[in-house]
Amino acid sequence: MGRMGSSGGGAVMVVAVALVLVFGNALELARSEEEILKIWPMPAEVRYGQRQVYLSGEFGVSTEYADGSGILKDGFNRMVSLIKEDHVVVEANLSHNSLLLGLHVLISSPNHQEQLQYGIDESYKLMVPVPSPGKPAYAHLQAQTVYGALHGFQTFSQLCQFNFKSKVIEVKMAPWTIIDQPRFSYRGLLIDTSRHYLPLPVIKNVIDSMTYAKLNVLHWHIVDTQSFPLEIPSYPKLWDGAYSTSERYTAADAAEIVSYAQKRGINVLAEIDVPGHALSWGIGYPSLWPSKDCQQPLDVSNEFTFKVIDGILSDFSKIFKFKFVHLGGDEVNTSCWTTTPRISKWLKKKGMNESQAYEYFVLRAQDIALSHGYEIVNWEETFVNFGKKLNPKTIVHNWLAVGLAQQVVASGLRCIVSNQEKWYLDHLDTTWEEFYLNEPLRNITNLNQQKLVIGGEVCMWGETIDASDIEQTIWPRAAAAAERLWTPYDKLAKNMRQVTGRLAHFRCLLNQRGVAAAPLDGFGRSSPRGPGSCYIQ
Amino acid sequence: MGRMGSSGGGAVMVVAVALVLVFGNALELARSEEEILKIWPMPAEVRYGQRQVYLSGEFGVSTEYADGSGILKDGFNRMVSLIKEDHVVVEANLSHNSLLLGLHVLISSPNHQEQLQYGIDESYKLMVPVPSPGKPAYAHLQAQTVYGALHGFQTFSQLCQFNFKSKVIEVKMAPWTIIDQPRFSYRGLLIDTSRHYLPLPVIKNVIDSMTYAKLNVLHWHIVDTQSFPLEIPSYPKLWDGAYSTSERYTAADAAEIVSYAQKRGINVLAEIDVPGHALSWGIGYPSLWPSKDCQQPLDVSNEFTFKVIDGILSDFSKIFKFKFVHLGGDEVNTSCWTTTPRISKWLKKKGMNESQAYEYFVLRAQDIALSHGYEIVNWEETFVNFGKKLNPKTIVHNWLAVGLAQQVVASGLRCIVSNQEKWYLDHLDTTWEEFYLNEPLRNITNLNQQKLVIGGEVCMWGETIDASDIEQTIWPRAAAAAERLWTPYDKLAKNMRQVTGRLAHFRCLLNQRGVAAAPLDGFGRSSPRGPGSCYIQ
Repeated sequence: MGRMGSSGGGAVMVVAVALVLVFGNALELARSEEEILKIWPMPAEVRYGQRQVYLSGEFGVSTEYADGSGILKDGFNRMVSLIKEDHVVVEANLSHNSLLLGLHVLISSPNHQEQLQYGIDESYKLMVPVPSPGKPAYAHLQAQTVYGALHGFQTFSQLCQFNFKSKVIEVKMAPWTIIDQPRFSYRGLLIDTSRHYLPLPVIKNVIDSMTYAKLNVLHWHIVDTQSFPLEIPSYPKLWDGAYSTSERYTAADAAEIVSYAQKRGINVLAEIDVPGHALSWGIGYPSLWPSKDCQQPLDVSNEFTFKVIDGILSDFSKIFKFKFVHLGGDEVNTSCWTTTPRISKWLKKKGMNESQAYEYFVLRAQDIALSHGYEIVNWEETFVNFGKKLNPKTIVHNWLAVGLAQQVVASGLRCIVSNQEKWYLDHLDTTWEEFYLNEPLRNITNLNQQKLVIGGEVCMWGETIDASDIEQTIWPRAAAAAERLWTPYDKLAKNMRQVTGRLAHFRCLLNQRGVAAAPLDGFGRSSPRGPGSCYIQ
Repeated sequence: MGRMGSSGGGAVMVVAVALVLVFGNALELARSEEEILKIWPMPAEVRYGQRQVYLSGEFGVSTEYADGSGILKDGFNRMVSLIKEDHVVVEANLSHNSLLLGLHVLISSPNHQEQLQYGIDESYKLMVPVPSPGKPAYAHLQAQTVYGALHGFQTFSQLCQFNFKSKVIEVKMAPWTIIDQPRFSYRGLLIDTSRHYLPLPVIKNVIDSMTYAKLNVLHWHIVDTQSFPLEIPSYPKLWDGAYSTSERYTAADAAEIVSYAQKRGINVLAEIDVPGHALSWGIGYPSLWPSKDCQQPLDVSNEFTFKVIDGILSDFSKIFKFKFVHLGGDEVNTSCWTTTPRISKWLKKKGMNESQAYEYFVLRAQDIALSHGYEIVNWEETFVNFGKKLNPKTIVHNWLAVGLAQQVVASGLRCIVSNQEKWYLDHLDTTWEEFYLNEPLRNITNLNQQKLVIGGEVCMWGETIDASDIEQTIWPRAAAAAERLWTPYDKLAKNMRQVTGRLAHFRCLLNQRGVAAAPLDGFGRSSPRGPGSCYIQ
């Protein structure tokens, strides 16, 4: 009945069987460490043994950490659910086997440092012992912060697998000692809710999936030319620029996203992109447009423009507690300023040309952000045009030029790398291999300058992305970048064949967790080409 | 920074704004009943008013039904979660408004009839009153069975929406009276776990999404040529035919799927497709193959073949409690039987030609199923070849021929309609309009014969479908078929323009619930073509 159904015996069948058999063997035979270690992203240091241990039916967490907001406990419970959700786990009689009673978690930092923020310690150490039969014991997880412990949970979950014979959860190759910490402190993913509205459950699913790959910043490109979906209490007509009355986020929704992410160790970087990419602002407040016929960039001559930016950033500061705010600043075509007589007159009065007005706008927006306690991220055009005139607290967000990071850090500013030809997820023709091989520190040898590259970000622009295709366009390619950003440089694979199997394994793990990660084989979000195992597609 | 980002002011912007404005208006202005009523599938009878009522913060369920297995309470709680999950709902001061305290549910059947089965009463009556301000009241839901009540919950959830001003949940156009029941008793969706393994969380998500469209049968095409993923305790080597050691379901996993579905009002129709489409059986038991070089169909001459089928169906009967089992029987190329000397000899001895052997196999498999208490579903080739020789308890599953249902019911057998050119979801070029317009009773005018068409099923064959693309390939097109199968014939739209807006609304609702339903505009699982509102894509 299937339209590709078999229509007979013979050669085709033999091939199918051969594949099954070959693959079955591949699973059993470990040919290299890459095929044994199925952890993604690869930890900094891994030691393992040859023994098998089993998780007790009441596998629990033990800790002296005062888990005020429940971050540790909730994180642990989520991990246990993940481990168990793909199969029905039974409580077998395992008294003669090595049994893990739970995970003992030791967190060194005092609780008041619990607030997630840029640059917190994310390291952890995980030890899985081999208890004597009949003498169950705990595995041990040590971390400086609860957020480091959350990463440890993720790693532990990847050591676990369902045993189809005993129907319990097992950890193979114990004892394990894993010592781990990220290479870069900023490991981001951009989502774009202006080109398409993304419902809250969809954003939450994206956040959950980010934790599996140890990404730690959700860059929320909230607003753009096409729509303004967010409630801004100070300027309540702004969200009149939403696509529809229902495709909007309340301020409480935004706070909910921040809180949901924060509990999972993920910061939210909010963006308003000014002065370009802001047409939708004028639906509610048309005086922000140069004119009704020329609606972008925001009117530089109007004090109301900066009052609105101030109102937005004031409201932001109550919701988005991350150290940084993103002010955009890219792709500014200033022609509306010169063709609108009122603004052209103002420019002359101020003695500014278009380019100076663009600079004036960007720097003034920076000052407003600083006044609300934020440091600033701006797209690279601001650096290319204004260089050192940018506030020294600026982080330059590279997206266009290859080699820009080198110039940025040479000038003493910090940089986030998202060069579009490698790390734009909407570029469907960019393969996971290219995502993996994109090195943020390329050609930057000076150690102090290297430190100024705080990390990188993969960008899921929303022109052709909505709730129906966001997950498979993000995954598995974002995971390839995630390893680049997490794993020590020396441990990164140089030859992509070394990691194909491990990444395929991670992709199948995402599928098992209900994440619609696409096959590796093919371009971004390709469907599988034909029947087959997840592990070889 | 977006590669399709705006690059200036002017005409492009004006178009964008115009779209926003036009669409904003479209949302506000109701031009026809289709634009007012956003319920999918359309209920049998709907009456509504013009008032607005609000859900109390403690909106709860009240009932005298002895909800032994928690089906009612769990269903209610799931509904409330769905209503609230897309926005942060606050408890506003609504003392001066009409307030709903909850839903009072009255179920007429005694509890012992709670077991879900084919043909149970799925009707319900839902009444949403307009309480006087300060005198909150309950809405009322009446049903014969708890499964009818579950449908009522789904309908109620579609009356609810988030009010962005008061931040509470409201029901517009009250009072409501909805009297509803399905047109067909069998409303199915096929999934295929042989061409690609589908992890449990993925199958559960599919089941949840089916309930939103009031589908009631998950046809699980478990096994095929490519892989045998299910544990069969009686023949434990069968699942050696799985793609890999981890791409398998334990018997307990299958029971979990059945239980999960059953609690949501969905029956699971299990299929083994014999004698063709069964190559993978022989990985564990090579004697089921005619020979190592010719591996399909199953060896008709070997008594072991029928012992294995008996063992499988015996194990099935402990897990799959639905009245029917599907025995396949399609696309049988018997050449391996004649080219294998041992079998060819056996055929001669029995005095059978190939075609008679095929018949012998199908009828014997039917007898085995009957002996385990099942009635049988078979693909249409069995009817085309053997006609009235099929057991009278056979349901013929149409997939190839247009007009086959007519012949089947004229012969007195029952029929399920899944004609591939209209209801195969893997046919990506079949539009939702074609799914909607496919009428199962076409050219069947005799009322008794009409009753023999028990319903229809959309088929999500898995050759190019895995966890990464199943949801957007199923939805929204399956929903179009779901209305055809649920809504009274006279209320079905004849002109697709009448339902486009309502189906788009349902698709956006699926998105809000985290289901990756694709845009209507475009072919199956197309991504959105460009930025825009969910409601017009």
